[in-house]
Amino acid sequence: MGGPEIERLIGLLAKLPGFGPRSARRAALRLLQQPESRMLPLAVAMAEAARAVKSCSLCGNLDSADPCSICSDPHRDRSLICVVEGVGDLWALERAHVHRGLYHVLGGTLSALAGTGPDDLNVPSLLARVHEGGVSEVILALGATVDGATTTHWLTEKLKPLGVTVSRVGQGVPMGGALDVLDDGTLAAALRARRPF
Amino acid sequence: MGGPEIERLIGLLAKLPGFGPRSARRAALRLLQQPESRMLPLAVAMAEAARAVKSCSLCGNLDSADPCSICSDPHRDRSLICVVEGVGDLWALERAHVHRGLYHVLGGTLSALAGTGPDDLNVPSLLARVHEGGVSEVILALGATVDGATTTHWLTEKLKPLGVTVSRVGQGVPMGGALDVLDDGTLAAALRARRPF
Repeated sequence: MGGPEIERLIGLLAKLPGFGPRSARRAALRLLQQPESRMLPLAVAMAEAARAVKSCSLCGNLDSADPCSICSDPHRDRSLICVVEGVGDLWALERAHVHRGLYHVLGGTLSALAGTGPDDLNVPSLLARVHEGGVSEVILALGATVDGATTTHWLTEKLKPLGVTVSRVGQGVPMGGALDVLDDGTLAAALRARRPF
Repeated sequence: MGGPEIERLIGLLAKLPGFGPRSARRAALRLLQQPESRMLPLAVAMAEAARAVKSCSLCGNLDSADPCSICSDPHRDRSLICVVEGVGDLWALERAHVHRGLYHVLGGTLSALAGTGPDDLNVPSLLARVHEGGVSEVILALGATVDGATTTHWLTEKLKPLGVTVSRVGQGVPMGGALDVLDDGTLAAALRARRPF
């Protein structure tokens, strides 16, 4: 239609979550009409982010610093670790300003269907952080799905013998829902209503 | 949340048509999780497109070649010019494979509300192309909106004295609709049913 550059741009945009071929064409057209003010800044931002952003070696968060800005923040409560499934969940909790401790990103949940076993999750690093001491409570903030509940119970068994309080976010998480689509109020209620096992 | 690079990336993605803050975060997360296989290729594609793609000096199409690949295609019927409002409309007609002539991109329609007058449209270049000769028919393929109809009538007055057949896409364009959202069959019917004034 307009050369290989346009076709390639539309093809790559169409792979973004939430985009299909039609919306990708619309976005490409908008970008092509403002190459200097829109497309180049976005291209630079992507290249910069791809270069700079890494997984935090302590908690698994995505950040341009390692340890991440949360792990290295002296004002965060280091005795409190909130375990989440993914970075999207961490972002949701941070936007809601409901957790002042640290995080640990599991990278998934146990799932028989998806074939995710204990070895696929960042569990050894979590146990090591608790072993090191200074942690008084681990909050399990996994989604209220079957896989989330399975993982919560399995992690509780792993963590209890280490002598820390293990709690899970409770009341407030709707059944079958995922954490990163909740409103701030529901997230706050869920954190407040956490129950020790 | 994860450094300025991530914030900037999300902010720029959120400005794409069809994206808001939430979908931009989701897309950013997907890109950040696959920096090498997804984000860098898209960044490169954008930079390449911003560098290479220009407006065709003949018809106004966006292409990495100038004249564009349609204007320089020896197999297109050079006696037939299809006038469209924007490049998105040209793309829609090309996807439908219903026009084998050339195009002319107006860059908008006359609009009292939007304050778009004759001087804001690529009309002089259209009249020059017809003046040069070799053009037997100009097809006006503007949307069936009030502004589209106004522009169609105004262009007809300009083109008729030059001794070319002036037609407009007819039957098939739903009232109030825009051209670039139509299905191929409707576009084909509209081109077939064009009526000379």
